[in-house]
Amino acid sequence: MIYIKRREQFCAAHKLWNDKWDAETNKKVFGKCSNENYHGHNFDLEVTVKGEINPETGFVMNLFDLKNIVREHIIEVVDHKNFNLDIDFMEGKMPTAEVIAMEFWRILAPEITPYKAQLHKIVLAETNNNIIEYYGE
Amino acid sequence: MIYIKRREQFCAAHKLWNDKWDAETNKKVFGKCSNENYHGHNFDLEVTVKGEINPETGFVMNLFDLKNIVREHIIEVVDHKNFNLDIDFMEGKMPTAEVIAMEFWRILAPEITPYKAQLHKIVLAETNNNIIEYYGE
Amino acid sequence: MIYIKRREQFCAAHKLWNDKWDAETNKKVFGKCSNENYHGHNFDLEVTVKGEINPETGFVMNLFDLKNIVREHIIEVVDHKNFNLDIDFMEGKMPTAEVIAMEFWRILAPEITPYKAQLHKIVLAETNNNIIEYYGE
Amino acid sequence: MIYIKRREQFCAAHKLWNDKWDAETNKKVFGKCSNENYHGHNFDLEVTVKGEINPETGFVMNLFDLKNIVREHIIEVVDHKNFNLDIDFMEGKMPTAEVIAMEFWRILAPEITPYKAQLHKIVLAETNNNIIEYYGE
Amino acid sequence: MIYIKRREQFCAAHKLWNDKWDAETNKKVFGKCSNENYHGHNFDLEVTVKGEINPETGFVMNLFDLKNIVREHIIEVVDHKNFNLDIDFMEGKMPTAEVIAMEFWRILAPEITPYKAQLHKIVLAETNNNIIEYYGE
Amino acid sequence: MIYIKRREQFCAAHKLWNDKWDAETNKKVFGKCSNENYHGHNFDLEVTVKGEINPETGFVMNLFDLKNIVREHIIEVVDHKNFNLDIDFMEGKMPTAEVIAMEFWRILAPEITPYKAQLHKIVLAETNNNIIEYYGE
Repeated sequence: MIYIKRREQFCAAHKLWNDKWDAETNKKVFGKCSNENYHGHNFDLEVTVKGEINPETGFVMNLFDLKNIVREHIIEVVDHKNFNLDIDFMEGKMPTAEVIAMEFWRILAPEITPYKAQLHKIVLAETNNNIIEYYGE
Repeated sequence: MIYIKRREQFCAAHKLWNDKWDAETNKKVFGKCSNENYHGHNFDLEVTVKGEINPETGFVMNLFDLKNIVREHIIEVVDHKNFNLDIDFMEGKMPTAEVIAMEFWRILAPEITPYKAQLHKIVLAETNNNIIEYYGE
Repeated sequence: MIYIKRREQFCAAHKLWNDKWDAETNKKVFGKCSNENYHGHNFDLEVTVKGEINPETGFVMNLFDLKNIVREHIIEVVDHKNFNLDIDFMEGKMPTAEVIAMEFWRILAPEITPYKAQLHKIVLAETNNNIIEYYGE
Repeated sequence: MIYIKRREQFCAAHKLWNDKWDAETNKKVFGKCSNENYHGHNFDLEVTVKGEINPETGFVMNLFDLKNIVREHIIEVVDHKNFNLDIDFMEGKMPTAEVIAMEFWRILAPEITPYKAQLHKIVLAETNNNIIEYYGE
Repeated sequence: MIYIKRREQFCAAHKLWNDKWDAETNKKVFGKCSNENYHGHNFDLEVTVKGEINPETGFVMNLFDLKNIVREHIIEVVDHKNFNLDIDFMEGKMPTAEVIAMEFWRILAPEITPYKAQLHKIVLAETNNNIIEYYGE
Repeated sequence: MIYIKRREQFCAAHKLWNDKWDAETNKKVFGKCSNENYHGHNFDLEVTVKGEINPETGFVMNLFDLKNIVREHIIEVVDHKNFNLDIDFMEGKMPTAEVIAMEFWRILAPEITPYKAQLHKIVLAETNNNIIEYYGE
């Protein structure tokens, strides 16, 4: 078993806001992240896949294929977009990095299995100092 | 003459859009950056000041003072905000990194002169790969 | 179960020296790190917490709360200090990065449990190339 | 149990090419990596060792010893070399980052055991965005 | 006048060897870089352009256009190639980072002038620690 | 004219303290940096040299020679040392990063001239966010 990782970056806006609460509670729970007019980040995404090495290629799966999967299914969908307003799969969900990471897992996991490998981990960094990891369970 | 630099980070949203043009022209000129619902970045800001060393302190000016000036006049004003909607000094201006860097110069330069030093350069990085520099002229 | 990480930096001095040994043995075991007058580092600290997502906030725990816990209990105590001379919890202990990481665990773990989450990992990097990880057992 | 990591860098050339296949198949499977005249990278290598702390030194094993092991057995052998042509232990093997990482494990694991510690993980990054991890099984 | 920078990466192989000299002299002058079978790097390229801001767009020139110029004229030509054997514009030239940076200037400068801007600087980093800058004169 | 840079790192301790002032004034001027028992940093040093290219080697000067000069005259002297107590050339001087950078210039400039090149710039970063530049005048 060996692990391969691909890192990609994208830019997006979001705000954290729970409609069930008043403005003051939102401000207290979400702080600056509740700014009405949105704010944004350069998100850093790391996708780790595990599997066995194919003796003919020396690859688990080609990192170019993994790059293309991540770009097609994630980066092209979310780059330069607004998680609250533009992204279908986030509708009705709170756009914290935690929830976004779990949605990315749900989208990417079935794309990896045809390569006889498995999605192992999603890392999503909102800034260099705030980082989320998800292992699918 | 010696140069001292302070680096800070902030998160903000923006979109690039010229009201004089139709949607198609905006899309052609500004690409993904014209997304209607905004997108955002972790901006990296670098402020360089030049001056002579004070023999009693060994400083041009204390980097803690420079940090406080940058935080009070820039970071607290723009962090977790939207450059198109929330920032007074950007009103009526196109929020490209170029224009933002020039506005930051205009705000910071007079704050440095009381320290017998001069603002030398503003560097504003929208991503690791897209970077603006301004020397005030 | 999802994992959230906060990274912080601090500067501190230390030296590695075992009083039971003579200078030559200390020099042989600890190399340059035994320099009598101390030396120092910009330490990079990464704190990982695991838990389940609160459906109302989309958070395991707010990363601002985690930041504040790390700053109050660690950064404010050790930043710009000397691990051999200034830090109560290191008294009588060898200030290697390994031992410091274990002490940080001991201090931080009980601060996390009130948030219905658990401390998962401490990473302490003395330089970019020398890095310690501790999982509490 | 505590984990210590040492990071090192080296530069090397390689190409990916399976002699059993024609040029077109190699191009299709390996893309740009099949360029006939080789290409190269600054590889980033991270070696993690696990063990218990020696109470006299506060170390699992001295990071200087780990540095020396990695430099003697890996860096001095592969730095500024060609994985297809210059490296004995790669003869007859496909020089993907996956296979190189597994060979590094085979070489380093027996060097760590005399220190009453165990090799835990090899990370080999071909670029910042393409990264391999191996845990020895 | 404002300065805009675009950073790109590419991988390539080279060796440093002067045919007028014997092997011993080449080894003495070029060290490990004279390895017969080539070695390689992840080169980091930074292209800085200067000009005045267009009031309609807020840009000196669109950073997407600069990205496309750098990718078309440099990255697609040199990525995953061998500077000694594959690159027409290096024929008969010593492939040090210094000489490569000067050739990149010669290629890129005329591509920038149609945008009413000027090439200002080329930075080429062979590793994080070895870096070349060229200002065209 | 072309510019070449070498980056090196070292660890050292210091404190900022002016004996002519009382403790309160020192605390007010130097803040945490006045901690009695010292604190320390991983300093990042960047040395830039300018000159013309030697047509036989393609080098201004060999970056290996520049590395060796920086290591012999700076790194071996200051690494894992205390700027207030261990370093002869800092005696009687305030160990701010500004003053240290100027002393490094004084030491390195005459070592470069025999290579028919000139020292151009010293950059000394105390942390990622606090950075000093000196051009020798």
